Amino acid sequence: MDAIIDTNPHECDGFPTKTTGAWQTHCVKDQKMRYPKKYDFPVHQVRRYLEPGPIVLVTSRLQDKTNVMTLGWHTVLEFSPSLVGLMISSGNHSFRMIRETGECVINLPTTKLTDTVVRIGNTSGADIDKFCEFGLTPDQASVVKPPLIRDCHAGFECRLHDDALVERYNFFIFEVVKAHAAKTPKHPETLHYTGDGVFMVAGKAISRRSLFRPGML
Amino acid sequence: MDAIIDTNPHECDGFPTKTTGAWQTHCVKDQKMRYPKKYDFPVHQVRRYLEPGPIVLVTSRLQDKTNVMTLGWHTVLEFSPSLVGLMISSGNHSFRMIRETGECVINLPTTKLTDTVVRIGNTSGADIDKFCEFGLTPDQASVVKPPLIRDCHAGFECRLHDDALVERYNFFIFEVVKAHAAKTPKHPETLHYTGDGVFMVAGKAISRRSLFRPGML
Repeated sequence: MDAIIDTNPHECDGFPTKTTGAWQTHCVKDQKMRYPKKYDFPVHQVRRYLEPGPIVLVTSRLQDKTNVMTLGWHTVLEFSPSLVGLMISSGNHSFRMIRETGECVINLPTTKLTDTVVRIGNTSGADIDKFCEFGLTPDQASVVKPPLIRDCHAGFECRLHDDALVERYNFFIFEVVKAHAAKTPKHPETLHYTGDGVFMVAGKAISRRSLFRPGML
Repeated sequence: MDAIIDTNPHECDGFPTKTTGAWQTHCVKDQKMRYPKKYDFPVHQVRRYLEPGPIVLVTSRLQDKTNVMTLGWHTVLEFSPSLVGLMISSGNHSFRMIRETGECVINLPTTKLTDTVVRIGNTSGADIDKFCEFGLTPDQASVVKPPLIRDCHAGFECRLHDDALVERYNFFIFEVVKAHAAKTPKHPETLHYTGDGVFMVAGKAISRRSLFRPGML
């Protein structure tokens, strides 16, 4: 229910085709892959995925170059407009791309991508094309130029909202302008980094809905 | 190993005794309770507990009033100085207390406190003494005035570092000036809120240490 069969017949190319504008898949030849099929998701509800504090994969695009970084320092800031804050260290190749374009996509990987998450964090987009190197499949976003990652459970298209703390703390405040999420599993098994190579895994959900006052949910 | 036996012989009082300066326990009479015993923890390593995105309990103290709130919107921002960002909605009673004093303690509850976490979030310190109401035990902090919560796995004493975004986003940047954490369990079962009354539980840890480049851990 949560996946579709798709084929990846293309060589690595890294940017949209001139004829269709559609994103080509990367580096995987005639291989059947399963991806979570995503649907429109309300932007003011992205806390559902981001508030639990998962490791995310942030994509960026500058001119004809696409990059992706692993990021764990982020927080939800507001429901409407849907604001999130990301600390993107200025030592990252992505920093300049996002600083110059004011755009990124926050993608939510699950434990299926654990090793890829680490490998993306270990490498720099200054040296390699990470989409190609790690066999990720880009999907064209609706509003911004950086791609969604088809392999991920959800993707949130972001535009810069406020850069007041970028100089001092590398802290970007983005507005989520479009959100996409798979419908199942309802609570994907996400990765939560603790440093020293160790991730906590969240996947078990418990409800205390009946204890909440309605306005506090 | 991770707990000590302690007794709570005191009535609810809510502030340090005049004679000893020590925090009295609250509202629990002659009841044997087990608490995680905490040790000094390096402030620049608080990411271990905060980066995974757990729900936290934030204590504040203004004049002779102590308060505690449930908070899920926070992020690590820097290792040294140890900086964390917290979005504390201005509608909360704690907002004014923290705004006026520039101090708080971030306490890390585990799933043992799930119902208490919800009840703290449901109520306002303007109406009740939450420490008393929910049977929490305060411990005197080392550096700041708000108390640690003895029932929690860890506590991080914070002083305001930068309020540049408080007016616009209720976003406080604190420096963790002193940290306390239990030694066991190494990976406590923490709560990660998703909205709508549902928490994800993180407790299972997986290591990919061997995949990391040493400088990237």
